[in-house]
Amino acid sequence: MSTISVNHLLGIEHLSKEDINTIFETADHFKNVINRPIKKVPSLRDITIANLFFENSTRTKLSFEVAEKRLSADVINFSASQSSLNKGETLIDTVNNILSMKVDMIVMRHPSAGAANFIRQHVNAVIINAGDGPHEHPTQALLDSYSIREKLGSISGKKVVIIGDILHSRVALSNIYALKKLGSEVMVCGPQSLIPRYISELGVLVENNLINALNWCDVANMLRIQNERMEISFFPSAREYSLQYGLTKPILDSLDKEIIIMHPGPINRGVEMTSEVADSENAIILDQVENGVAVRMAIIYLLASKIKS
Amino acid sequence: MSTISVNHLLGIEHLSKEDINTIFETADHFKNVINRPIKKVPSLRDITIANLFFENSTRTKLSFEVAEKRLSADVINFSASQSSLNKGETLIDTVNNILSMKVDMIVMRHPSAGAANFIRQHVNAVIINAGDGPHEHPTQALLDSYSIREKLGSISGKKVVIIGDILHSRVALSNIYALKKLGSEVMVCGPQSLIPRYISELGVLVENNLINALNWCDVANMLRIQNERMEISFFPSAREYSLQYGLTKPILDSLDKEIIIMHPGPINRGVEMTSEVADSENAIILDQVENGVAVRMAIIYLLASKIKS
Amino acid sequence: MSTISVNHLLGIEHLSKEDINTIFETADHFKNVINRPIKKVPSLRDITIANLFFENSTRTKLSFEVAEKRLSADVINFSASQSSLNKGETLIDTVNNILSMKVDMIVMRHPSAGAANFIRQHVNAVIINAGDGPHEHPTQALLDSYSIREKLGSISGKKVVIIGDILHSRVALSNIYALKKLGSEVMVCGPQSLIPRYISELGVLVENNLINALNWCDVANMLRIQNERMEISFFPSAREYSLQYGLTKPILDSLDKEIIIMHPGPINRGVEMTSEVADSENAIILDQVENGVAVRMAIIYLLASKIKS
Repeated sequence: MSTISVNHLLGIEHLSKEDINTIFETADHFKNVINRPIKKVPSLRDITIANLFFENSTRTKLSFEVAEKRLSADVINFSASQSSLNKGETLIDTVNNILSMKVDMIVMRHPSAGAANFIRQHVNAVIINAGDGPHEHPTQALLDSYSIREKLGSISGKKVVIIGDILHSRVALSNIYALKKLGSEVMVCGPQSLIPRYISELGVLVENNLINALNWCDVANMLRIQNERMEISFFPSAREYSLQYGLTKPILDSLDKEIIIMHPGPINRGVEMTSEVADSENAIILDQVENGVAVRMAIIYLLASKIKS
Repeated sequence: MSTISVNHLLGIEHLSKEDINTIFETADHFKNVINRPIKKVPSLRDITIANLFFENSTRTKLSFEVAEKRLSADVINFSASQSSLNKGETLIDTVNNILSMKVDMIVMRHPSAGAANFIRQHVNAVIINAGDGPHEHPTQALLDSYSIREKLGSISGKKVVIIGDILHSRVALSNIYALKKLGSEVMVCGPQSLIPRYISELGVLVENNLINALNWCDVANMLRIQNERMEISFFPSAREYSLQYGLTKPILDSLDKEIIIMHPGPINRGVEMTSEVADSENAIILDQVENGVAVRMAIIYLLASKIKS
Repeated sequence: MSTISVNHLLGIEHLSKEDINTIFETADHFKNVINRPIKKVPSLRDITIANLFFENSTRTKLSFEVAEKRLSADVINFSASQSSLNKGETLIDTVNNILSMKVDMIVMRHPSAGAANFIRQHVNAVIINAGDGPHEHPTQALLDSYSIREKLGSISGKKVVIIGDILHSRVALSNIYALKKLGSEVMVCGPQSLIPRYISELGVLVENNLINALNWCDVANMLRIQNERMEISFFPSAREYSLQYGLTKPILDSLDKEIIIMHPGPINRGVEMTSEVADSENAIILDQVENGVAVRMAIIYLLASKIKS
């Protein structure tokens, strides 16, 4: 059986190209499973997984829960609002308490960059990072690359532009790592104030003009405008952003080729793109959601084999 | 095996008398199941159901969850407080995202009348309406009629009065549809300000005097006073309401016959009825709750057969 | 098969020494189970348990849920924030409604002393008290005594001091009952204002000086400072408390013996004890958490046999 080189999924940064391909091949198998009448496999009946969400999340949490149930794992849910953190307990104490209830694997979202890695150093369990502040969101990047591979046959040599608030986005950073490892050319596009200064060190192109970026790319990954992550205002208004970086049908039609449109969701229709674009043949946004379950099943399955062996 | 004529349960309005009887006969079977030591059947192991509650609910949500688990379905819970709707996502996008995780059936409560029907037109899944604003609450009406049938042997020819705020009540409207289809005589009773003007078009009698209504009926279904649904005050106070429409033991004793007392819960003891009435032999309020699980199991089971065939 | 003398677990007060030992021997078995690769037994597939938490709780609720799942029981979760209590429903009505959905056992936490006993008198189900206001928290006391027995071989004759806010603590009261029944010598230690006047009637020693208490004991159970339970301020500040009753490594080292340190969690590091103490060999705090699952499995299992027989 195939295996991956890591014992935790903290970020894409630590994965090899071979690891990613193993995850994708395993996800191919699970994508078949979830499209069968009985969408479950009994593989992980002996594994208990705790979902620790110290930050609100709807779709990532739901996608992990569905993936875990499809694998027949036992699931424990824990969210910050119920949490002892409000009572002055440290993060390590909270996690160790949950582990004492005989948990094998932890899926954790946390508002602080590095939280998953910090916990990995202090507790004895497999850790999956479900988003750590503005740092990494590795499962999102894997499902994004998997969706491109599914649509275009391969990722190597393809041109992918990530559009929007690059500065505050863990989705952008994890996607850049994944796409570069898999041989894509990567560009980031957005207002200069939302592009981090160090970004060229990652080997990506920078473009401020949306039309130039779209003319260059095969795939456009439109990031969500997340007002909640911006402490100060980096552009005047959502309307202003939409006028400069919002994708419309006339813009799509003006390109001399078909490009693929992605979005990690939830979409602000009329901001990042119009409804016409979101509902067009070019958009693979709902495929991304479906693939998210298959890719998360693959990651959990591959990491669970590390526990048993 | 028996089957029903609809592919969704949006409201009682679209069901035939035969559909309702098929649901009741199926519910008879499941009522036996939930009274056995092992209260579960493996029938729907291959079905995934998402409960989408965009409005607070305790007992309806719990009743659906219990029904789904007794049928061995996979269950995904989603409530508005965790929801991306707060982040600007449209209802259709939210539902489609959840469906992309391979969901077969959606149980939805929503504050807007017509929400279930709207979603049915836009997504590809079986939809069960668990209450859409002031419009319909079909599973409540079915469990109410089922409980009358259980207690009195049949519904046809029985006289049922629905008492309280008819204007804002989805329970009243769905009950009127169900009872009329099953051959009951139906009366509504309440302050004139809480009875909609079109109501006589539905073929129901209108009565403002409680004693007259009780002397007429075999069954009194006492609606809950829902201050949360009234935008302006339709009667001076709960005490005022209670004095005119509250059911007491002396009133019950003054009738020259036994009548059955129903309430959809939660009861405001001392408002709609006194504790003496709620705890009397006449009240079948807890039977309604038990029957709710059996009836919901029947509906889910019958609609699931539409997916598989 | 062994059995216990009670049909409900309302408090330690009603258990015999033999009952407690039967619970411990059953917990020994389940502790083995949860340390196997497959941590589940199919014992309670025919039991439905409702967790009713009318007060916030993280670890107790999670521990019960894990215990119930490991026993393969069907679980219904109900918390006050979703509750009809906000809508004016009585506690008995709420509980009876849930029981009408065919529930066999209720695990209840409630802010009022006596709530579990009150419900036991009015409804027909097995009741487990998961904490009733400042009264009892029997499962915590059982896991505490179980953890002492595990560490020291026996409880009889051992000297146990409970340190902190004895006045408001259900953990203290339940621990005193359990330890006395099992033959321990028990002391309470804390500021005079936080020790109830009747306490000596329970046959416990009272000591206000921390060092004296520690020099006397084999085991120190450090209660959590719960500002949320104190209506008026019983000592000037947490810092003041910590200076007088906080446990530090220098204090531990100054004793002429090794003592065991316990804490029901969540710990306020730097208040009840320093991190050095919490992470020392002396502390069995995480063992308490692990044992909590085994002890709760034992209690649920033993009480479930009362339903079936």
